[in-house]
Amino acid sequence: MLINGHPASSINAADRGLAYGDGIYRTLEVMNGQPLLWRWQWQRLAADCASLLLPCPDEALLLAEIQAVAANLERAVVKIVLTRGVGQRGYAIPAACSPTRIVSAAPWAGYPAERAAQGICVRWCETRLAIQPRLAGIKHLNRLENVLARSEWHDPAIAEGLLLDMDGTVVEGTMSNLFMVQDGELLTPLLDRCGVSGAMRASIIDTATMLGIAVRETRLTPAQLLAADEAFVCNSLAGIWPLRQLDGHRWPVGALSARLQQLAR
Amino acid sequence: MLINGHPASSINAADRGLAYGDGIYRTLEVMNGQPLLWRWQWQRLAADCASLLLPCPDEALLLAEIQAVAANLERAVVKIVLTRGVGQRGYAIPAACSPTRIVSAAPWAGYPAERAAQGICVRWCETRLAIQPRLAGIKHLNRLENVLARSEWHDPAIAEGLLLDMDGTVVEGTMSNLFMVQDGELLTPLLDRCGVSGAMRASIIDTATMLGIAVRETRLTPAQLLAADEAFVCNSLAGIWPLRQLDGHRWPVGALSARLQQLAR
Repeated sequence: MLINGHPASSINAADRGLAYGDGIYRTLEVMNGQPLLWRWQWQRLAADCASLLLPCPDEALLLAEIQAVAANLERAVVKIVLTRGVGQRGYAIPAACSPTRIVSAAPWAGYPAERAAQGICVRWCETRLAIQPRLAGIKHLNRLENVLARSEWHDPAIAEGLLLDMDGTVVEGTMSNLFMVQDGELLTPLLDRCGVSGAMRASIIDTATMLGIAVRETRLTPAQLLAADEAFVCNSLAGIWPLRQLDGHRWPVGALSARLQQLAR
Repeated sequence: MLINGHPASSINAADRGLAYGDGIYRTLEVMNGQPLLWRWQWQRLAADCASLLLPCPDEALLLAEIQAVAANLERAVVKIVLTRGVGQRGYAIPAACSPTRIVSAAPWAGYPAERAAQGICVRWCETRLAIQPRLAGIKHLNRLENVLARSEWHDPAIAEGLLLDMDGTVVEGTMSNLFMVQDGELLTPLLDRCGVSGAMRASIIDTATMLGIAVRETRLTPAQLLAADEAFVCNSLAGIWPLRQLDGHRWPVGALSARLQQLAR
């Protein structure tokens, strides 16, 4: 682990990242020193910094630190956390803040291969996502909703829980973004009111668009999802997991899901 | 500063308090070793732990740590932070979690006395509070909304900003709770959908009730607040600050506000 470029494993207890969740993060796979989906990870990270008025680190510096922490790992999970740093008491953003940059790596064995191959069982979460346009899409450190949602089930046969917002529209999984296919069109929830805009989601949108597949970000109801021809969740570590079962509904692994899986690899 | 009872100033960078804001906090004044409003602080702390399924520390232990960190300070601000501790990757609450308990003190000079005596100028914040009943009232570590709201103004003549929720009802200040007086009745926003339930707010409700003053938690509109006979914000460090000016409206310091101020001391 590197903290502001130096080997360390602890942070100042007065850091605003702890006090207020005043920061952002990204999680990515690094294979043989290469951060996967870096273009989208970096785009999202820079956008999130801008949204929260956090100083954005230099890209080359960050890449060097990612490669340093993952140097001895063939396949690593790297986590980047950026906070506004140590602050005085009070919520106001300090005029001069010295941000904290944490880059850490752990060995990564991947998820069970059958999740991608055969699809997963998912459930609806009772926890609803609050509607907060000012924070929508940002991968910030205020993640209690995800903690509560992920704590609703312990059955290992359920790989993911799906979240609705307070209005009852479908948003995402607890740790993934969601797509569905209807009549050849790829649909994914619009993340302008809540949810996290993941790098894998962004890469799928770009890839599908390049291939001439119609992609649309829109509001989706649970009924629309259940009526989909195909559906899948995705994130940077899992890749694409087709949905196999939700409530009483079952899907086969669809052709477009399988094609996007191949392209994602 | 004591971390889990030991003198320290840093926490493990893998703490869930940093990763997800998975924890709670309280801020209190300690005068000559006596934590003020302790009965309400402890009630709220225990309730918040229960809401988030966080292990609650022993009261006697916590009191001893508060007194230890404030030992050499006549007047101290003590902050208590409780997190779910270091976790594995992922949102799920670990079966065995070892919480982190941070108790720190700083000298406290109080706020300028004229705020309590003459009242304060406040403004409306543009940042709205998201509606999330599962987290409403809890003084948790997901405080980005407060950070954004407090960053909307820099004018030192404005002592506080008032927050509306997404439905446009009045909730609280960025760092305070809100009360208004109408026809002798004390009204304060119901915190069942968002907002922080502060110890001073709880003590005012209890004190007023004991005195036979009618108190009601309810939804309040901006128009109702502007039409109030008296209004004030409060927190454990500030005590009670009457509202003197908001938009074009001006209030004198009201009789009930002044009486509650005296009782709060």
